[in-house]
Amino acid sequence: MIFGKGERVLFFRFEDGEDFIHTLVHTLTENNLDSLVVISGIGMLRDFEIGWYNVSKKQYEKEMISVPHELIHISGNVSSKGGFPFPHLHVALAGPSRSAVGGHLFGGTVCNTTELFAVRTGDLKLTRDASGAATPLEFRK
Amino acid sequence: MIFGKGERVLFFRFEDGEDFIHTLVHTLTENNLDSLVVISGIGMLRDFEIGWYNVSKKQYEKEMISVPHELIHISGNVSSKGGFPFPHLHVALAGPSRSAVGGHLFGGTVCNTTELFAVRTGDLKLTRDASGAATPLEFRK
Amino acid sequence: MIFGKGERVLFFRFEDGEDFIHTLVHTLTENNLDSLVVISGIGMLRDFEIGWYNVSKKQYEKEMISVPHELIHISGNVSSKGGFPFPHLHVALAGPSRSAVGGHLFGGTVCNTTELFAVRTGDLKLTRDASGAATPLEFRK
Repeated sequence: MIFGKGERVLFFRFEDGEDFIHTLVHTLTENNLDSLVVISGIGMLRDFEIGWYNVSKKQYEKEMISVPHELIHISGNVSSKGGFPFPHLHVALAGPSRSAVGGHLFGGTVCNTTELFAVRTGDLKLTRDASGAATPLEFRK
Repeated sequence: MIFGKGERVLFFRFEDGEDFIHTLVHTLTENNLDSLVVISGIGMLRDFEIGWYNVSKKQYEKEMISVPHELIHISGNVSSKGGFPFPHLHVALAGPSRSAVGGHLFGGTVCNTTELFAVRTGDLKLTRDASGAATPLEFRK
Repeated sequence: MIFGKGERVLFFRFEDGEDFIHTLVHTLTENNLDSLVVISGIGMLRDFEIGWYNVSKKQYEKEMISVPHELIHISGNVSSKGGFPFPHLHVALAGPSRSAVGGHLFGGTVCNTTELFAVRTGDLKLTRDASGAATPLEFRK
């Protein structure tokens, strides 16, 4: 991970083989960062797990995909949850057929590289209650 | 709708069952906001209508999808058109099969929640002529 | 191409028939711009080429698609490479079936229009070594 802490944007460059979520959270924790919005994220992922939330059953249906996919985009945010940076990220990816798949990102391994950019929300502190897995995103000024 | 008006970013948290477009436009109107760029949007939508523009026939081919889908991303902008905030939004969504669909967003109902972030364009005022449905995006300094 | 150079955001409006990549690079060069993050990009493309990187073979598998597609989103960045603005962009697109395809964008022709927004990275100068085709994204403060 190469991390650039700019005034306007934060830059995270992931390296081949890194665990995407763990590396991101580790970098955020080390740099004391939360309350971010992801503005761009491209590269490749392999061995990633994405999910669709089954509203009737109140649970995620997850799928693990091992084939390396182009990471078309990451969208989402990082809030503070129980004192730790908590990413909520959705992804779109494309494999050899060029067809896109996507959903909630549970995890994945960086393939080659991933170039991620985020901005700080400044006076809007993003928070989530730590009492459950899927607590709503809130803000504090 | 919970709305956070920050210096750097605007945060819109939609609630389950809300009409996405109407709630967005209502919140923008109430807060006297246009000239925005959407930088992130994730959550879930159901009963949404997306379209592909048939260039030969000069009309949209629309599809209504009722099954709740993960909202992978919203991209687009809000301009001022005839004095009202006018959103132009494209979406990517994924259903139970994880396959992604997308296109121009005509409408939809929020499922569970949607977390949307936008930035103001500041000295670039975004406008559209009110004389037609699909007038080009322009700017004024 | 209509270009708006704001304090907060840059706005690029592409016209029907323009070569997307060439027009973008030309506008960036003319305005002496690099070190950007694309925050939104919607519209339509036709005759576009997208690719999936085959890691085993160390080469892109490319596909040219002529049918006009809704451009759902563009994600990526512009760095300085050998003194020239170098875009690295991934796209998600949807055709008549509403199914999404995507990957690395090699080129395409604007259909109707495309509305693109980017932000400057400010104190983080984005660079790539000019010694190869796929050199890693780096930064300088």
